[in-house]
Amino acid sequence: MDYVNGPGRNHLFVPGPVNIPEQVLRAMNRNNEDYRSPAVPALTKTLLEDVKKIFKTTSGTPFLFPTTGTGAWESALTNTLSPGDRTVSFLIGQFSLLWIDQQKRLNFDVDVVESDWGQGANLEVLASKIAEDRSHTIKAICIVHNETATGVTNNLATVRKILDHYQHPALFLVDGVSSICALDFRMDEWGVDVALTGSQKALSLPTGLGIVCASPKAIEASKTAKSVRVFFDWSDYLKFYKLGTYWPYTPSIQLLYGLRAALDLLFEEGLDNVIARHARLGKATRLAVEAWGLKNCTQKEEWFSDTVTAVVVPPHIESSEIVKRAWKRYNLSLGLGLNKVAGKVFRIGHLGNLNELQLLGCLAGVEMVLKDIGYPVKFGSGVAAASAFLQNSTPLIPSRI
Amino acid sequence: MDYVNGPGRNHLFVPGPVNIPEQVLRAMNRNNEDYRSPAVPALTKTLLEDVKKIFKTTSGTPFLFPTTGTGAWESALTNTLSPGDRTVSFLIGQFSLLWIDQQKRLNFDVDVVESDWGQGANLEVLASKIAEDRSHTIKAICIVHNETATGVTNNLATVRKILDHYQHPALFLVDGVSSICALDFRMDEWGVDVALTGSQKALSLPTGLGIVCASPKAIEASKTAKSVRVFFDWSDYLKFYKLGTYWPYTPSIQLLYGLRAALDLLFEEGLDNVIARHARLGKATRLAVEAWGLKNCTQKEEWFSDTVTAVVVPPHIESSEIVKRAWKRYNLSLGLGLNKVAGKVFRIGHLGNLNELQLLGCLAGVEMVLKDIGYPVKFGSGVAAASAFLQNSTPLIPSRI
Amino acid sequence: MDYVNGPGRNHLFVPGPVNIPEQVLRAMNRNNEDYRSPAVPALTKTLLEDVKKIFKTTSGTPFLFPTTGTGAWESALTNTLSPGDRTVSFLIGQFSLLWIDQQKRLNFDVDVVESDWGQGANLEVLASKIAEDRSHTIKAICIVHNETATGVTNNLATVRKILDHYQHPALFLVDGVSSICALDFRMDEWGVDVALTGSQKALSLPTGLGIVCASPKAIEASKTAKSVRVFFDWSDYLKFYKLGTYWPYTPSIQLLYGLRAALDLLFEEGLDNVIARHARLGKATRLAVEAWGLKNCTQKEEWFSDTVTAVVVPPHIESSEIVKRAWKRYNLSLGLGLNKVAGKVFRIGHLGNLNELQLLGCLAGVEMVLKDIGYPVKFGSGVAAASAFLQNSTPLIPSRI
Amino acid sequence: MDYVNGPGRNHLFVPGPVNIPEQVLRAMNRNNEDYRSPAVPALTKTLLEDVKKIFKTTSGTPFLFPTTGTGAWESALTNTLSPGDRTVSFLIGQFSLLWIDQQKRLNFDVDVVESDWGQGANLEVLASKIAEDRSHTIKAICIVHNETATGVTNNLATVRKILDHYQHPALFLVDGVSSICALDFRMDEWGVDVALTGSQKALSLPTGLGIVCASPKAIEASKTAKSVRVFFDWSDYLKFYKLGTYWPYTPSIQLLYGLRAALDLLFEEGLDNVIARHARLGKATRLAVEAWGLKNCTQKEEWFSDTVTAVVVPPHIESSEIVKRAWKRYNLSLGLGLNKVAGKVFRIGHLGNLNELQLLGCLAGVEMVLKDIGYPVKFGSGVAAASAFLQNSTPLIPSRI
Repeated sequence: MDYVNGPGRNHLFVPGPVNIPEQVLRAMNRNNEDYRSPAVPALTKTLLEDVKKIFKTTSGTPFLFPTTGTGAWESALTNTLSPGDRTVSFLIGQFSLLWIDQQKRLNFDVDVVESDWGQGANLEVLASKIAEDRSHTIKAICIVHNETATGVTNNLATVRKILDHYQHPALFLVDGVSSICALDFRMDEWGVDVALTGSQKALSLPTGLGIVCASPKAIEASKTAKSVRVFFDWSDYLKFYKLGTYWPYTPSIQLLYGLRAALDLLFEEGLDNVIARHARLGKATRLAVEAWGLKNCTQKEEWFSDTVTAVVVPPHIESSEIVKRAWKRYNLSLGLGLNKVAGKVFRIGHLGNLNELQLLGCLAGVEMVLKDIGYPVKFGSGVAAASAFLQNSTPLIPSRI
Repeated sequence: MDYVNGPGRNHLFVPGPVNIPEQVLRAMNRNNEDYRSPAVPALTKTLLEDVKKIFKTTSGTPFLFPTTGTGAWESALTNTLSPGDRTVSFLIGQFSLLWIDQQKRLNFDVDVVESDWGQGANLEVLASKIAEDRSHTIKAICIVHNETATGVTNNLATVRKILDHYQHPALFLVDGVSSICALDFRMDEWGVDVALTGSQKALSLPTGLGIVCASPKAIEASKTAKSVRVFFDWSDYLKFYKLGTYWPYTPSIQLLYGLRAALDLLFEEGLDNVIARHARLGKATRLAVEAWGLKNCTQKEEWFSDTVTAVVVPPHIESSEIVKRAWKRYNLSLGLGLNKVAGKVFRIGHLGNLNELQLLGCLAGVEMVLKDIGYPVKFGSGVAAASAFLQNSTPLIPSRI
Repeated sequence: MDYVNGPGRNHLFVPGPVNIPEQVLRAMNRNNEDYRSPAVPALTKTLLEDVKKIFKTTSGTPFLFPTTGTGAWESALTNTLSPGDRTVSFLIGQFSLLWIDQQKRLNFDVDVVESDWGQGANLEVLASKIAEDRSHTIKAICIVHNETATGVTNNLATVRKILDHYQHPALFLVDGVSSICALDFRMDEWGVDVALTGSQKALSLPTGLGIVCASPKAIEASKTAKSVRVFFDWSDYLKFYKLGTYWPYTPSIQLLYGLRAALDLLFEEGLDNVIARHARLGKATRLAVEAWGLKNCTQKEEWFSDTVTAVVVPPHIESSEIVKRAWKRYNLSLGLGLNKVAGKVFRIGHLGNLNELQLLGCLAGVEMVLKDIGYPVKFGSGVAAASAFLQNSTPLIPSRI
Repeated sequence: MDYVNGPGRNHLFVPGPVNIPEQVLRAMNRNNEDYRSPAVPALTKTLLEDVKKIFKTTSGTPFLFPTTGTGAWESALTNTLSPGDRTVSFLIGQFSLLWIDQQKRLNFDVDVVESDWGQGANLEVLASKIAEDRSHTIKAICIVHNETATGVTNNLATVRKILDHYQHPALFLVDGVSSICALDFRMDEWGVDVALTGSQKALSLPTGLGIVCASPKAIEASKTAKSVRVFFDWSDYLKFYKLGTYWPYTPSIQLLYGLRAALDLLFEEGLDNVIARHARLGKATRLAVEAWGLKNCTQKEEWFSDTVTAVVVPPHIESSEIVKRAWKRYNLSLGLGLNKVAGKVFRIGHLGNLNELQLLGCLAGVEMVLKDIGYPVKFGSGVAAASAFLQNSTPLIPSRI
């Protein structure tokens, strides 16, 4: 049943799926249940209420789809838009590219704004497009909050400012897959219309829940959106929400209890502390990369991602060799470079239920792999840079004071 | 984290989700993994090979979608058909109704063949439609193998015979959600083009895998089918199959290992023995119902289902009271009557990882609930009828001889 | 890793180890921890406080030994007695016999009061011995509350009355292995000096905790008792209790968290309700035995045990065949007859985390096994007798009302 | 149910209990079973056969006591010795001290050979005692293979040489608690008569199994040894071994399956590779300590332990502050200094299921804690020293090549 065991723990530093806390594994270690008994709706009710907090929304309506992030994308789009609708979408890396591909296949008229991989969404182009669009042909702005392939975080507040400045009614659809529960995300404040994430990312659950949250404006839009949808249709959910039974089809009992445990852990730590922890681990990683003499794929500080760092390797090195060797020799799982940056970057995911010493173990591992591969790294250099920062900034664990 | 505990074990007799064996729970009790490491594709490869066995196909191509049965339906339809295509579909209960509803919303031209709830699909009507359809306007026959709402099993071999008799090229799409791994199902022999099931049914896993298997003809059809699809698109999977990485988006690591364990258990028991066990438990249940003086919702023996029995209650009794009381007093989960048979039937699911004594405990519980509710059952009557049959027909556990 | 799988769940009806509730399995599903961190002592403190409740004592001192019931016996004896001390001990079945054997090997002067297996302790003999012992040569009365081999419950209140009547200072040592948390047990009220149980019995945990509770008088006795002891010595524990670190050597982290969960479940159900549930299941079992025309090994109603029933089989039947067949054909685990009653009785354990339908499934299974083995049982007869009683006496599950 | 959570994983670097691999947690995640069914003896048989391999014995007899290391000590002593027997025992740290204390309380005549804490057993003194003891008053040599309190490994081969040189028949009793499965240990080759370990040490299980292995000579001695014993008596086990039922009292089902999984992992990795891994991690730790400018408590290289390193802190630092802070701020569990070295050393356990990056994370954590506490450590220094060595010496994971 187990393949390719290594001694000791796997060091999981891909930018998802991430480490699941023991508390969540425990909560999920259970038999199936009848989801039509009173117990499951009662549990679901608390989940729907509490999951809104991770989006920082009070007016949004959440949906817990038994799907992945790709399915959550599809749900966001098909419930709010009609075939032929114009969307403005930013191509800045592999995941925004895949979303754009989906938008095209769903027959929207996608207005692609492309940037170099390693740059953020070009919001100046957005501003000019919005300014020009007096007839409101743009129906939606589609943007990833954090591009997982390049480690680039986009500025969502600015998107909102642009829309507001021109009083443009376009829907504001956000892929928060590698941001929500890890980066500062404010659905209500930024006027996001649909935000979504996947359970295997910063929520630190197994894959299987595509969590979508819709603003009242998005719900309104869903009433007239003509895209064909059944499995991903919000209206079926809304019907069952009203009935108080919540589920149009069978949910995963285990993931529901797991989500309960995951939310409890997040709230116990405090969502702001969780975000601060990600900021701390992101900064520490970047300091290490710098100490190694390597470049961050992300071209400007304003776009630095606190959930994933894409590290550029020197031209004579093939980055996939680093990933392969890390796994084969040190039981360390790093992220590959994808598509345009394949072979050129490797990625360190630092999101989800993670702490300082886990990260430092990873950084020490990366140093050894770099040496293995022929890069003249100075042992301990990255760890030292990260440690100096972390020793200065890590708070005591509140529950242990 | 736990709601509404009762002492002792929950007796789960809804027709899905069903009991998960301890071996599967154990296999799933694990952290996430990088699905791009060599380990996950290696595991996936064995799963795709072995999962074909539960469909009894060698030529089919299986897909393990991170979804539910509803999603599996959508995948079956959208990959093989185009908007406007004529389907013949049989309405015989709540789940066939929901599938028909989906077919309509996906813009197919659904030719509905309705039967009384409690009857099987009217295959004589099918025969005449097929006979008349010389221009082959019918693109697909959509049929549930086992209607979970009424406990009716349809005769798939006859469907094939009809199609063959008239040399009709319609695709043959089968919902095997409450049949596959429990009832005799022969994809290749019966020329089924798409068959599908959900992990939480007879496979005895948590919800989360929609397993779809496509014949070469169905794969061929998918190349020209014009229904819009992205998440459920087979072509993305086929692309990754060729690459040997298998996954276009993140799978649930836990469900993959769980599926491995579930298949190992099925093969260890022997698929034919598993089917024989379901036949035995189904028969025992029906004998109990008869002994209680109650009617099976299924109107003829040829349609009797070995995975679920819908029991008709006398007119003065509200069947949902039975379900409610079973759960509140005896920690017994029974299935409600749905839609047209709401209040009129309750359902006993007897599928998945289940044995004789579990069923007898359930039957004894039903007797007590019937008494509670005012029905003059003779204590022990159903159990006696079932036991007499089971004591005569249950084999020794092979691994214990 | 798994041996001799059968389909479906194992029906565990030996009188220990018993079924572990899912909540407890979950709580135990965890990595090791440093037991010298502040967390483990904090947990231990609540456990020691709460575990007193299952003994119904406020003045007792509990010890959680990493051992089994046999070790707990040894701890009870060696901490309170010196070699050569006279004990009065009752031989009424295999477990009292084993305890007596231990007492002898520990060099006590054991005054054995023997009864027929199937009878309770002869308390008249005790009364006369106590009456005669004016010089107080008897240092301890050793008695099993519930003899697991024969299903006999002794009357502890009477023992106390006898001692009080003669103002005899003998220590009152009680094996509560198959009684505590299941039968009415009152350490303080009955003036029990040492009571003990094992985690795998009515507490419904894995084996591994020998739980011993000592009265102030027993603690006092331990200061002068000369029996050699180290691992089982209370004084080491008491030293660490004072330090607030609690553990003289490494405890099982998993069992501590498991015990926390087990106690929480017991308190949530209510200890009195737990005892009432055992009374109900015990009575139902006896009614079934009677309906089958078989005899209870326990000779008088006053001794009937609510945790285990030893069923006498007709002379021409070998009871171990019943046990063997139950396991091989029905995945049902029953208890063997031991020693003097080997071959003559089989045992149904009905203790721990168990409910009505589980028991009825077992009883239906026993009926089939009896038939298998050639005993002319009437199918459904035992189940009917038990159901009629249970349907009348089972309360609603409080958390579900 | 959970206390004092911190985000991310606990870094468990006490020298026991150690990290449990996921495979073992999974294997233990199960309900109780009847230990008198054929399945448990069949499992036990393989365990008893395979557990001999970790002792490197073919002639020894293993016992799996439901106890801790302290109980295993007691079993080793009481089964082979009689009150008044002279033992030679080496006091070199807290655990040898506790074993000596036990020997005294069990009424042996303990001839204590004391060394400074940080030194190994003084085998020259042993040689002279053996030389002088022509009348063979010394019945046993009692020695810890690895003193967990100071990180000192004794040379067992030399002990055997001394005994052989003088043809002295004393029994050779070895505490292998923090050595077996981690350090080179050769029961047969070194003529060890009783060796023992605890499950929570290098076997990487929960606490609960005291594993004792007896040579034929020790078994012979047990037949005449007069120490009082019941729970720890080998003869009861031997009786049940002959019967093929193996257990004189209830074992922990979960630990048996856990032991199976633990042994499987050890054998898959290869016992020699496991030992080499410990050597590698031990060496890396010592290099880090040196790089920090701190002293190893162990005074000579010949005694360096590959399972635990006791680090001496400068006089102005209180080592318990380091342990406390590591836990409170970095979720890092280090070992306290005990007794004579309390406040003066802290300990890093590096045994059991552990790999390079886990250790490097720990070392990076220690650096931060040292800084916290005011010691002028150079960040990255220890990690660099360790990494340089590990990068040079770590093999590829065989199953991944």
